[in-house]
Amino acid sequence: MDLLKKKILAEGSVEEGNILKVDSFLNHQLDVAFLNEVGKEFKRLFEDREITKILTLETSGIAIASIAAQYFNVPVVFAKKIATKNLDKATYESDVYSYTKGRTYKIKVSKKYITSDDRILIIDDFLANAQAALGLMDIINKAGATLEGIGIVIEKGFQDGGELLRKQGINLKSLVIVDSLEVGNIKFR
Amino acid sequence: MDLLKKKILAEGSVEEGNILKVDSFLNHQLDVAFLNEVGKEFKRLFEDREITKILTLETSGIAIASIAAQYFNVPVVFAKKIATKNLDKATYESDVYSYTKGRTYKIKVSKKYITSDDRILIIDDFLANAQAALGLMDIINKAGATLEGIGIVIEKGFQDGGELLRKQGINLKSLVIVDSLEVGNIKFR
Repeated sequence: MDLLKKKILAEGSVEEGNILKVDSFLNHQLDVAFLNEVGKEFKRLFEDREITKILTLETSGIAIASIAAQYFNVPVVFAKKIATKNLDKATYESDVYSYTKGRTYKIKVSKKYITSDDRILIIDDFLANAQAALGLMDIINKAGATLEGIGIVIEKGFQDGGELLRKQGINLKSLVIVDSLEVGNIKFR
Repeated sequence: MDLLKKKILAEGSVEEGNILKVDSFLNHQLDVAFLNEVGKEFKRLFEDREITKILTLETSGIAIASIAAQYFNVPVVFAKKIATKNLDKATYESDVYSYTKGRTYKIKVSKKYITSDDRILIIDDFLANAQAALGLMDIINKAGATLEGIGIVIEKGFQDGGELLRKQGINLKSLVIVDSLEVGNIKFR
């Protein structure tokens, strides 16, 4: 997606630890007009699939998934990773290991909001080691729902998540794949 | 907003501690078609104001603010309450006391994303004691920006946040005000 590449080159910055910081439009400030272009592109990429629900993870997937959902005419469900009193007792859960934080956290979705009839598109901002995606897939599996695809805004091609998912035959589409991240030199595949 | 009242009566539930649970459309599953109606209503209520940015708080404000922002043609900034390595060093900060959790947490916004030229609309899901709203107002104040209004989806009229803000002359608009919350008996103002 050329518009996204331009946006990353113009506004992104490379931080220590292979972090691509895109908080001017994706992770802190949200460029909603741009997110609409992202949403349209996801719709184009998954046009052939019958989707009943978009699943994402708080926090950074919520805005992207919500804007994209308008083009699919389906609701969004976001998995919770922050403990809240408000969540139903009956949940599907999975453990997600965060390489960045060096610890495992639990993600949860109320059993009410994913059923075995659901055909699900996962949407998230980044794909690196695919730990979050695997956690969401585990929840879809536990619910007996069907995974129709995974849409990622920015895939880090130098980490193994993309390969891991594609080897399993997952219908994974990333809007851009970044092959190397050096200050002043971001390379796209 | 009649559609919202109907939605609360049909799908909401009252939980211990004066909690109104609306996670089928607002806080866990997101009914994006409905959120578009919420967004249009906010636009109608703040039509007379010149807004340059919508400010909200992670997590539950993000979807509402993002969908609404489409009707204002402005970006969203969400204040961070979860520690992240990715945030700029230069931030505006404020302490927010949570009555529900019985502790104070810090909210932060990068100085890049609010400037003294900004005319800001705060959007959030709930208003109870107004502690989050006061924290966001503190950040707007520190940035030298202008608060144009506060748009709330559900105000708990039996708690003092609404009165506190209106007494200060804040342009506060709530889509519904709930005056009492009893199981099987939700009263709107």
